[in-house]
Amino acid sequence: MNTATGTSALPYTFLGPEGTFTESALLMVPGAASAERVPSTNAADALARVRAGRARAAMLPIENSIEGGVPATLDAISNGVELRILHEVVVPVSFVLVAPADVSLQDVTHVGTHPHAWAQTRNWFQDHLPDAVHVPANSTAAAAHQLLGAGAAFQAAVCAPLVAEQTGLSVLAAGIEDNIGAVTRFVLVGPPGELPEPTGADKTTLAIPLPEDRPGALMEILEQFASRGVNLNRIESRPTGQFLGHYIFSVDVDGHIRDARVADALRGLHRVSPEMRFLGSYPRADQQPPLIREHNADAAFDEAAAWVGTLLG
Amino acid sequence: MNTATGTSALPYTFLGPEGTFTESALLMVPGAASAERVPSTNAADALARVRAGRARAAMLPIENSIEGGVPATLDAISNGVELRILHEVVVPVSFVLVAPADVSLQDVTHVGTHPHAWAQTRNWFQDHLPDAVHVPANSTAAAAHQLLGAGAAFQAAVCAPLVAEQTGLSVLAAGIEDNIGAVTRFVLVGPPGELPEPTGADKTTLAIPLPEDRPGALMEILEQFASRGVNLNRIESRPTGQFLGHYIFSVDVDGHIRDARVADALRGLHRVSPEMRFLGSYPRADQQPPLIREHNADAAFDEAAAWVGTLLG
Amino acid sequence: MNTATGTSALPYTFLGPEGTFTESALLMVPGAASAERVPSTNAADALARVRAGRARAAMLPIENSIEGGVPATLDAISNGVELRILHEVVVPVSFVLVAPADVSLQDVTHVGTHPHAWAQTRNWFQDHLPDAVHVPANSTAAAAHQLLGAGAAFQAAVCAPLVAEQTGLSVLAAGIEDNIGAVTRFVLVGPPGELPEPTGADKTTLAIPLPEDRPGALMEILEQFASRGVNLNRIESRPTGQFLGHYIFSVDVDGHIRDARVADALRGLHRVSPEMRFLGSYPRADQQPPLIREHNADAAFDEAAAWVGTLLG
Amino acid sequence: MNTATGTSALPYTFLGPEGTFTESALLMVPGAASAERVPSTNAADALARVRAGRARAAMLPIENSIEGGVPATLDAISNGVELRILHEVVVPVSFVLVAPADVSLQDVTHVGTHPHAWAQTRNWFQDHLPDAVHVPANSTAAAAHQLLGAGAAFQAAVCAPLVAEQTGLSVLAAGIEDNIGAVTRFVLVGPPGELPEPTGADKTTLAIPLPEDRPGALMEILEQFASRGVNLNRIESRPTGQFLGHYIFSVDVDGHIRDARVADALRGLHRVSPEMRFLGSYPRADQQPPLIREHNADAAFDEAAAWVGTLLG
Repeated sequence: MNTATGTSALPYTFLGPEGTFTESALLMVPGAASAERVPSTNAADALARVRAGRARAAMLPIENSIEGGVPATLDAISNGVELRILHEVVVPVSFVLVAPADVSLQDVTHVGTHPHAWAQTRNWFQDHLPDAVHVPANSTAAAAHQLLGAGAAFQAAVCAPLVAEQTGLSVLAAGIEDNIGAVTRFVLVGPPGELPEPTGADKTTLAIPLPEDRPGALMEILEQFASRGVNLNRIESRPTGQFLGHYIFSVDVDGHIRDARVADALRGLHRVSPEMRFLGSYPRADQQPPLIREHNADAAFDEAAAWVGTLLG
Repeated sequence: MNTATGTSALPYTFLGPEGTFTESALLMVPGAASAERVPSTNAADALARVRAGRARAAMLPIENSIEGGVPATLDAISNGVELRILHEVVVPVSFVLVAPADVSLQDVTHVGTHPHAWAQTRNWFQDHLPDAVHVPANSTAAAAHQLLGAGAAFQAAVCAPLVAEQTGLSVLAAGIEDNIGAVTRFVLVGPPGELPEPTGADKTTLAIPLPEDRPGALMEILEQFASRGVNLNRIESRPTGQFLGHYIFSVDVDGHIRDARVADALRGLHRVSPEMRFLGSYPRADQQPPLIREHNADAAFDEAAAWVGTLLG
Repeated sequence: MNTATGTSALPYTFLGPEGTFTESALLMVPGAASAERVPSTNAADALARVRAGRARAAMLPIENSIEGGVPATLDAISNGVELRILHEVVVPVSFVLVAPADVSLQDVTHVGTHPHAWAQTRNWFQDHLPDAVHVPANSTAAAAHQLLGAGAAFQAAVCAPLVAEQTGLSVLAAGIEDNIGAVTRFVLVGPPGELPEPTGADKTTLAIPLPEDRPGALMEILEQFASRGVNLNRIESRPTGQFLGHYIFSVDVDGHIRDARVADALRGLHRVSPEMRFLGSYPRADQQPPLIREHNADAAFDEAAAWVGTLLG
Repeated sequence: MNTATGTSALPYTFLGPEGTFTESALLMVPGAASAERVPSTNAADALARVRAGRARAAMLPIENSIEGGVPATLDAISNGVELRILHEVVVPVSFVLVAPADVSLQDVTHVGTHPHAWAQTRNWFQDHLPDAVHVPANSTAAAAHQLLGAGAAFQAAVCAPLVAEQTGLSVLAAGIEDNIGAVTRFVLVGPPGELPEPTGADKTTLAIPLPEDRPGALMEILEQFASRGVNLNRIESRPTGQFLGHYIFSVDVDGHIRDARVADALRGLHRVSPEMRFLGSYPRADQQPPLIREHNADAAFDEAAAWVGTLLG
């Protein structure tokens, strides 16, 4: 902010503390490894930093193949000043059990970690430390860092492999996660601005409040996608925080807003749910292009628009 | 066409002969009563006259509340050089039994008329002349006119009241139609040109070939209407004349192509069925405006387009 | 056939006169060639004969690849005492021009035939007898038979090859139809009774009045089919004969009422349109079995019913 | 209830510890106040107790008007041995800040509570204790109970009013929740057995895995409801825990499985998604009966089944 070169001098932020899977995800963004990186304590704080112009973008977990959507991220993106998802990263989830060098497995009676990590390692503990007691922490990395100081209420922590490296704690066990193959999807969120260029394998994220005044509104929303051949690949309901039964649907669809079928579906959705938010079009992490039928391709939309234009004179 | 006054010097044509309900319908078009009117022998000939620039427009029956769509008209409009429906007229259907002055009811053993008129007066004949034999004619008026000459193979004819007036034949019985309240809808068809101005109570007619390469295509077509809140008020299937099971759907919807929801549905339909024909937007004969929900009104479409425009930069 | 009791002693009837394509179709029904066959003058009369117990079944044209559905047949089946389609036959359409032995092509100034046959031979006449005048007849065969007597108002007739054979008239030209490959579909209609056994390649015909009290009713009807995986292969609208815009949809679907998915769709349709008529399940003429996805097969329906049954206790 | 044998002698369990909103909800179940009540440490443990026959039913939070569905509950119900929701209770959410008698507001530097409660009181802390640090606890009640012993890492706790009463801690501030009017919905979950009787204002809960092998599967699922007129009033996606993009939809619909339209929709859903789970039909907490259109009422289903039965003979 105090340099002449604008946002590129700003740091990135991420859901901290250091060493979480989120920092690993940020490090996969081109240029981020060599840029300043500031941890934030939660998703809302990270986005507040971006909104205030104190960070150029924030890396946040948005979906976990075990736990589902990350509500704090979904809600922080969908409310407040508009932001855009610029990039997605998918990171495999793997856990290690770490402890100070003088602690061995049989010494462990209490284990510190984030409740999600605890939930995802139940089988290993059932088999190896059935009597271990969980001490909740705000993040897996936070638990590990507490072991470096004095007075931790536990002897070992469950955390990401990166934290073990960064802290130098010893690894009592590795690969202790229940679901081999679990992944977490992260998104890099920045201020609105230039749209990332379409790559042919893109994703668009939307937050669509369900209109409450009429039955069948969800069908009506899905119809806007179906009538343009736009395929959904994630749909999650989030409460609006006002009444039971009032939802915002968080949706990922195949394609970029610069694809005619996506732009046209967005026009239809804006009518049906005027408070809908566009949260960005960005390259898919898996680089898989969708199958688009000819009548839903850009050329078909252009030709249709030209044809109606001729009729209208 | 080679006169200084343009198309207004051209005659109107209509499904003849003179005195049919079709001429009655043409007489209801402003200015037609004082214009030259030329009968055509069938729908194809009437439209050929318009396409060749020898008539400014043709009045044809398109739908009958008893018999349904008039195939000859639907097919003649949907194929060949493009034409437009400019105007619709709805005329009540009523029949009279006419004969020369010296014929009385008990003399009648054979009755000439068009098969449709015969079909629509079955009850009256069952009750009053159960043994009468039908002699088919090309039109109700043609049958009546044959009674004026010699050698008709029947003693009486079923026709429209207007023919009785025009020919001076005596009316043996009036109001002999089975369905009190039956009506026929006629359309005035001209060359493409200026679209009639929207009135707020308009109708748009389309001919939509059913794409044959995929199941569910009819649902896909209806979805294009539903997703824009466009209401269908007539749908008829017509074979394409190629194979059993290949159809063109002839459809009337509420609204004018200058209504944003109709134009947008047409864009969608053109993609799904590229051979679709626009057959005109014109005022409804009954002047009943449709109920349009706010999110399907022009303002909602404009706002949605503007919103997406802003996102696209 | 020549026994004194039961329906087997009753004659078949068909849309006459003798020698029409309809009689050709009837001759393809097993046993019909050796049975008594009585022509009827129109579809309503043929079905009246069946309803009165004076014929065991009636053969009628129901759909033509050129002209579309045959309204008289569709309406006669859909109204009045319930009947069932028992069998379908598809016959190629081909026309010949016939005349008495002493007439040559250049003598022909007037041609007698049914308007449909006239419509389907326009090109040939345009090329070979452009000035020939059409004299309408009630059927192609009727026109030909008139040539056998005196006083016909025409010198030649357009009819089916079978009529040329039966009458001995000379054939001036053969294969004069415009659309090579045109076919007509005929149905054999009898009283309700035993359902034909499912063959695995069956068709079910329904007459479904469109509920008039709500928009979207057509979508609601199609949804009953779609939600059970039942594929439509013909849909035609017919007016109810009461008001413009009031329709009965005449529909053919893949499958037999003894197929669980068809029976279940019929339950749904009966709720949505209680006046719906079941017009029969019968083997397809083309013997093509439909593709049924596993979750729409009988076993899936049985299992689903059993599962819900268990829950209900 | 006071016999020595059978389930009535078994205790209820609930998401503990004592004093949470969940215990408040359980106390609203008829008979529960006088029954034995055992806290469980999490949803999985509570249901394990029911599945093992050591508790007759478990009260669990299922949906919060701020935070949305409670994943732990949704997942615990949807997996493992089948269970049934028997009862629902809706409880208003209100928080108090409590501390030992000798602590005043200005002494508070650290606050213990469950992260959800912390998230729902951000505004109050921003205004009154902007520098307070959150110490996460497994439940609001657990945090409060820690204040009763020595060595708590915080001076005050955010919890439910009931806990303040039970513990005797002093209330530093009441009604500190951000969203006035927030509520939590709880469900009482027991073993399968007798279905609760339909009351006319019932709800049915389902867990429907989204079939992964075909696009449009969500539309297909919604169609099963729509084609029987069954209204959805909650839909949430939960990951299956296998791959990103693999979901189970947790759904509440209007009506009881003994309502014909619900049973019929379940039959259709079982075909489309054979792993679907029925999680119970039970009276709505708000006792609001749904509007059922005549063609979706039990009588319409009965009549349709009878009609098809007659056709099948």
